Amino acid sequence: MVSQEMYGLGSARSSIRELFEYGSRKAKELGPENVMDFSLGNPSTPAPAAVEAAIEHLLRTETATALHSYTSALGDAGVRATLAESLNRRFGVGATADNLFMVSGAASALIACFKALTPEAESEIVGIAPFFPEYKVFAERSAGATFCMVPADTENFQINFDALEQILRPNTCMVVINSPNNPSGVVYTRETLERLGALLRAKSEAYGHPIFLLSDEPYRELVYGGLSVPWVPDFYENTVVCYSYSKSLSLPGERIGYVLVPPTVHQWQTVYLAIAGAARACGHVCAPSLMQRVAALCCDVQPDVSIYEHNSRLLYDNMTAMGYRCAKSGGAFYLFFEAPCGLTGQQFSDLAKEKYNLLIVPGDGFGCPNHLRLSYCVPTARIEQALPFLEKLMAEVKGEGHL
Amino acid sequence: MVSQEMYGLGSARSSIRELFEYGSRKAKELGPENVMDFSLGNPSTPAPAAVEAAIEHLLRTETATALHSYTSALGDAGVRATLAESLNRRFGVGATADNLFMVSGAASALIACFKALTPEAESEIVGIAPFFPEYKVFAERSAGATFCMVPADTENFQINFDALEQILRPNTCMVVINSPNNPSGVVYTRETLERLGALLRAKSEAYGHPIFLLSDEPYRELVYGGLSVPWVPDFYENTVVCYSYSKSLSLPGERIGYVLVPPTVHQWQTVYLAIAGAARACGHVCAPSLMQRVAALCCDVQPDVSIYEHNSRLLYDNMTAMGYRCAKSGGAFYLFFEAPCGLTGQQFSDLAKEKYNLLIVPGDGFGCPNHLRLSYCVPTARIEQALPFLEKLMAEVKGEGHL
Repeated sequence: MVSQEMYGLGSARSSIRELFEYGSRKAKELGPENVMDFSLGNPSTPAPAAVEAAIEHLLRTETATALHSYTSALGDAGVRATLAESLNRRFGVGATADNLFMVSGAASALIACFKALTPEAESEIVGIAPFFPEYKVFAERSAGATFCMVPADTENFQINFDALEQILRPNTCMVVINSPNNPSGVVYTRETLERLGALLRAKSEAYGHPIFLLSDEPYRELVYGGLSVPWVPDFYENTVVCYSYSKSLSLPGERIGYVLVPPTVHQWQTVYLAIAGAARACGHVCAPSLMQRVAALCCDVQPDVSIYEHNSRLLYDNMTAMGYRCAKSGGAFYLFFEAPCGLTGQQFSDLAKEKYNLLIVPGDGFGCPNHLRLSYCVPTARIEQALPFLEKLMAEVKGEGHL
Repeated sequence: MVSQEMYGLGSARSSIRELFEYGSRKAKELGPENVMDFSLGNPSTPAPAAVEAAIEHLLRTETATALHSYTSALGDAGVRATLAESLNRRFGVGATADNLFMVSGAASALIACFKALTPEAESEIVGIAPFFPEYKVFAERSAGATFCMVPADTENFQINFDALEQILRPNTCMVVINSPNNPSGVVYTRETLERLGALLRAKSEAYGHPIFLLSDEPYRELVYGGLSVPWVPDFYENTVVCYSYSKSLSLPGERIGYVLVPPTVHQWQTVYLAIAGAARACGHVCAPSLMQRVAALCCDVQPDVSIYEHNSRLLYDNMTAMGYRCAKSGGAFYLFFEAPCGLTGQQFSDLAKEKYNLLIVPGDGFGCPNHLRLSYCVPTARIEQALPFLEKLMAEVKGEGHL
């Protein structure tokens, strides 16, 4: 009567969502002050004042018809031109409005690219652990492709190149990366990107077709501690960029972002049109029209990352001192750490939850079953409250001889 | 390198869009006053003042975090409860928040339902001409199902039941209807819906599985001339409703609507979850969060249909007097008429375009190749300007012996 595949997708709960819902129930039972929920990646800093100012400005200066009518499926031409100019100023992209396709958030962007750039049933998309769990769902369920995982470099959370090289095959259509990374918070270095570009160039030549690099960059503006995020298309000509304003402008509910197909991409107009077609097949008519204009007005607004930076250091320094092995996070708002004493991420997550109502996502879904993700997009006080429990947990697992 | 199917979808121009773009080019060349464009179904009345008031109210009373954060994938619970109550008051649906799934506009709603309710590769979706052309694209390209067309009842633009009965088969999963109809403007009568309900009930029983009725209702509030739109689920228990605020609140660019799975639907929770899964596979994370709240605040606002009603009568009375055979339109903002003197819709459209820069969409895409759709969501003056040319065209095609 219904599609079992779609029913499965609709009724499955991600481990993140499950943990969050457990937390909501517990908060009702015990009071919210007694549940330390680090499960969700929902920005805790509000949208910058410029967003509200932009909405009010638009309401004052534009007619309702101009604001709320359909735009072109590609996005409003003026909005796209403004965003292209901003990218050109910052990164020297050489883009025009024609290189940008406005979408309803990163999920829409990713699926459109996955569907557009996997021409055959045997097409393969390569993801590098740790990765956002929906990549696998989107590759398999939306694009009908095969998702191949490169195991994590658990030392530095850069790229395990030996493993990547072995996984690339003539069927590989695309490698998807995400830097700053969810869940590790790590930013890929220039050296990593240079090596990646060289490898993909060599393999593209060997296989006689371009392997696209999909750079999923919702956290591009969330970096700190002196880090900067290299511009990925500078390292590899066949890079397609997916961007969302969810994190940088704290607008995750508004579903606004873009796909950039830079003019360096092989047959970029063909790639662009295939992405537009895939979006149409997914119900895209246009990205939300008011928010397209807000994005154009706010595209050069830099987010306030001071709280994230403070939380990041507080957690990293303290947890490292307690003996946790943590990825050195320089971006996004996640700390990724190894479950101590040989426990799996799931075991440690269960322990933290059951003993102290401390909610930390196990790393299985991210492709790292021995790790956990702690989202620190929360008030600092919540972290200060959690630290003693993290210390107790370490003492307990050591004491129980998990070593 | 790219998916040819997606490239095809992205590079194809619909005949509506092609005509509109021709009009834009001509308007630049000849001045906009010399191009009479009746191609697009973009509401000409602006969003009611209540929409702007709602946005301003929300900006004043809610935090940015509350307004712009992710909602549940199903939609904000409070918003869904409000919409359910409104539907219960108006139509006695007996719905709760759990029966509503907030989506990014009608296209997303339709695709999610098509994908969710076609369990097999051989599944068939039945559409009744004249129909919205994207139904065929969504059925075939998004859901991978077969689209079967029931030819139009060109007398009354109700349902050709003999043809429908012949087309229903054990593989039929769904019949999709659209009343008030795009492109005919006709509202299905109670008698039509009673007969449809009885037929689907009998066939569901014969085939041993429910045939779902998908009621696509973006024009539900746009009726006039004393007509009212019967509530489809009253006539058939397995009806799923797709609604969008694009037309009723003149917000087509904002992409906000819902799917209602009424509690009468067989295993409605299963159906609901399959729709949620299909939406996820298409990149749905949540419907735009600000606009969810606007919809809740404005759900009982009735659109001002006075201009549409006036335009409708002006066109219908004059064109009928000139000898055109027009569908008696009581809703939406479309007049559907037969190409005179045995011409095809395409031939008459070409003639009108080339002789008088009068842009009217040929009916092929709607499943009626001898008809044309004229969108009267335009200023009345534009219609008054066009009438003499419509009269000339009739005289000319008669004079040239097309009879």
